[in-house]
Amino acid sequence: MGRRRAAIVGAGHTPFGVLPDTPRQLIRRAVDAAFASVDRGLERSAVQEAYLGTLGFSGWQLGNASAVVAEEAGIPGAAVSRVENACSSSGYALRQAALAIMSGERDAVLVVGLEKMNDTTSSRRRYWLGVSGDTEWERLSGLTFAGVYGLMAARYLHDYRVPPEALAEVAVKNHAHGALNPNAQFQKPVTRERVLSAPRVAAPLGLLDCCPVSDGAAALLLVNEEAARRYTDSPVVIAGLGAGSDTLALQERASLTSLRATRTAAKEAFDRAGFGRPEVSFLEVHDCFTIAELLAIEDLGFAPPGDAGRLTMEGATRLGGRLPVNPDGGLKAKGHPIGATGASQAYEAFVQLRGNAGARQVPHAERALAHNVGGSGASATVTLFSVP
Amino acid sequence: MGRRRAAIVGAGHTPFGVLPDTPRQLIRRAVDAAFASVDRGLERSAVQEAYLGTLGFSGWQLGNASAVVAEEAGIPGAAVSRVENACSSSGYALRQAALAIMSGERDAVLVVGLEKMNDTTSSRRRYWLGVSGDTEWERLSGLTFAGVYGLMAARYLHDYRVPPEALAEVAVKNHAHGALNPNAQFQKPVTRERVLSAPRVAAPLGLLDCCPVSDGAAALLLVNEEAARRYTDSPVVIAGLGAGSDTLALQERASLTSLRATRTAAKEAFDRAGFGRPEVSFLEVHDCFTIAELLAIEDLGFAPPGDAGRLTMEGATRLGGRLPVNPDGGLKAKGHPIGATGASQAYEAFVQLRGNAGARQVPHAERALAHNVGGSGASATVTLFSVP
Repeated sequence: MGRRRAAIVGAGHTPFGVLPDTPRQLIRRAVDAAFASVDRGLERSAVQEAYLGTLGFSGWQLGNASAVVAEEAGIPGAAVSRVENACSSSGYALRQAALAIMSGERDAVLVVGLEKMNDTTSSRRRYWLGVSGDTEWERLSGLTFAGVYGLMAARYLHDYRVPPEALAEVAVKNHAHGALNPNAQFQKPVTRERVLSAPRVAAPLGLLDCCPVSDGAAALLLVNEEAARRYTDSPVVIAGLGAGSDTLALQERASLTSLRATRTAAKEAFDRAGFGRPEVSFLEVHDCFTIAELLAIEDLGFAPPGDAGRLTMEGATRLGGRLPVNPDGGLKAKGHPIGATGASQAYEAFVQLRGNAGARQVPHAERALAHNVGGSGASATVTLFSVP
Repeated sequence: MGRRRAAIVGAGHTPFGVLPDTPRQLIRRAVDAAFASVDRGLERSAVQEAYLGTLGFSGWQLGNASAVVAEEAGIPGAAVSRVENACSSSGYALRQAALAIMSGERDAVLVVGLEKMNDTTSSRRRYWLGVSGDTEWERLSGLTFAGVYGLMAARYLHDYRVPPEALAEVAVKNHAHGALNPNAQFQKPVTRERVLSAPRVAAPLGLLDCCPVSDGAAALLLVNEEAARRYTDSPVVIAGLGAGSDTLALQERASLTSLRATRTAAKEAFDRAGFGRPEVSFLEVHDCFTIAELLAIEDLGFAPPGDAGRLTMEGATRLGGRLPVNPDGGLKAKGHPIGATGASQAYEAFVQLRGNAGARQVPHAERALAHNVGGSGASATVTLFSVP
């Protein structure tokens, strides 16, 4: 590389679920945990900038919310900004933070991902989710996110002759992983039969194919790689950044079964990382619906088109398989507080690559990939992490 | 410096005002104008990333709006993200774009600032402005932005024994400048008497102390400084970036007459620029209310506390004075489409430093400062521009 790189030296995570905490409390909990996790400590006054990834769900402080991060994180006066790319908000916030360090402008930067979704009614919730899709055509015709992903799933099962059991197996696996994660919203396994017999939400997707409605926050502390050893003996390096976009509306795209934003982001990230797909120990992918995990595995280049279902059915993507996917339970079981998800994925990379993931530890994890998607694929980030 | 710097090689600007255009059309107009302004042309396919600064006023595509930029700008697939820091959204978007180039990750980046404010009712407009201030306490007590700045103005006039005529003179000057700017919302001069006798909005601020409600967009094309000559003989270099924050609520601050966010951002920007205040040819400051221009001149370090009114009354800040402030008419006369303002200020720096500002040209302009504020000072950016 030769260029300055960013490294994570601390990370914090609240439980994901239906929580009593206010948004301010969630920020504070995640940030306090991140500072507490820095092995040799990091002074709050050393943090020069913060990025908040949040959709601003339910209308809490819809504008200028980043200022609240400076207040709650105890970094008064520091530059703060909010990055909003729907469900990929904190994937992009992490990207911005890394760029700030790579540019040489900053030496220590805080990333916070946040969403508080359970303090509003279900009709308002549909509104807030709706505004992250194409409002001009998709929402006008009544299409929800489950509907959009339902269309993608139907097309995928048809085109590649994949059985619905492959989708169900994604849920079964991620619930099994979530049962090992004390921060997960759902910590109990489900059977394939239960997934297949759950009420349909948008055929072929049923209730257990969908991620839940979650409150939560995650925080990351990034420093310049050269300085990282001052804070810990086991920093996690951001080895490659990738980002891409696509049309907002599904109807404008060439394919319903592949996300260009993901493919672009993956190519960029690997071009920069200096290692390839075979060296990746595990994936954190954006499984807002079970179909999304299969598409992600393919678009990220870990399976040919139509083949991710088979891999999943064979157990390759389970903990203990040859390429574990979503060891933390994924959005499906861990939960999906919109703006918190990208930071939560990086949190998982941090604890796994340091060998601190407990019951869900991926053995010998040295390189990880995190994949965060906005909307139905209008934006995506891919971030590669490695031990130094 | 020794470090890689970003340079602007193209900039575009729609008229500001009450416009029939949709948000998509505003983006397209500003971006097309930016590409058309590049002297030797810049291929759209060369643009690798885009940043959209917008509050998302009136609820248009509240989430994931950045994807629309890729569509309208003709850069499909490029990484896009939205930066939202209330009225400083595109000041921060410009900052992010510059960091992306300084990091070495990108060679060409697009910045778009956008707001469409006139397609909603005045009560909804109060809502959308309200959500950018402290919603928990200030808005709960009924305080609007005019109210917040009214408190600041009353305190300032009292503490420094400044006459109300000093505030009025800011409006008179900026309307005189706006009359020279074909993109300004108000292109007619006003007299001091008219400003002083206008209906009060939040004493001591009257109607003509307040910026208008505006639609508009501005766009910037940034490249790596070393490559800039490929596109134009007169690039404008981003010589220094600064950013800072403060508490969201006015009540939490030590002073009502000075913005810490501005002071922090100014210090950072000058620390990096390699030139000092005496070398700055003109200022673009965030005059959402007349009082804000006086505070800005002081917090930016161009006058001691309480002295900006005198400078203004003496004509020092007029075109032709020794330190022109807001030669484009400022937010006050040019208009203030929330998320577009930071990019619009950089547009003015670009055209002035290239000697293309026509009737409002600042003679021999070689270095410029742009100052963008979010809310009542919760966030701010200061950006320094220079000829190479």
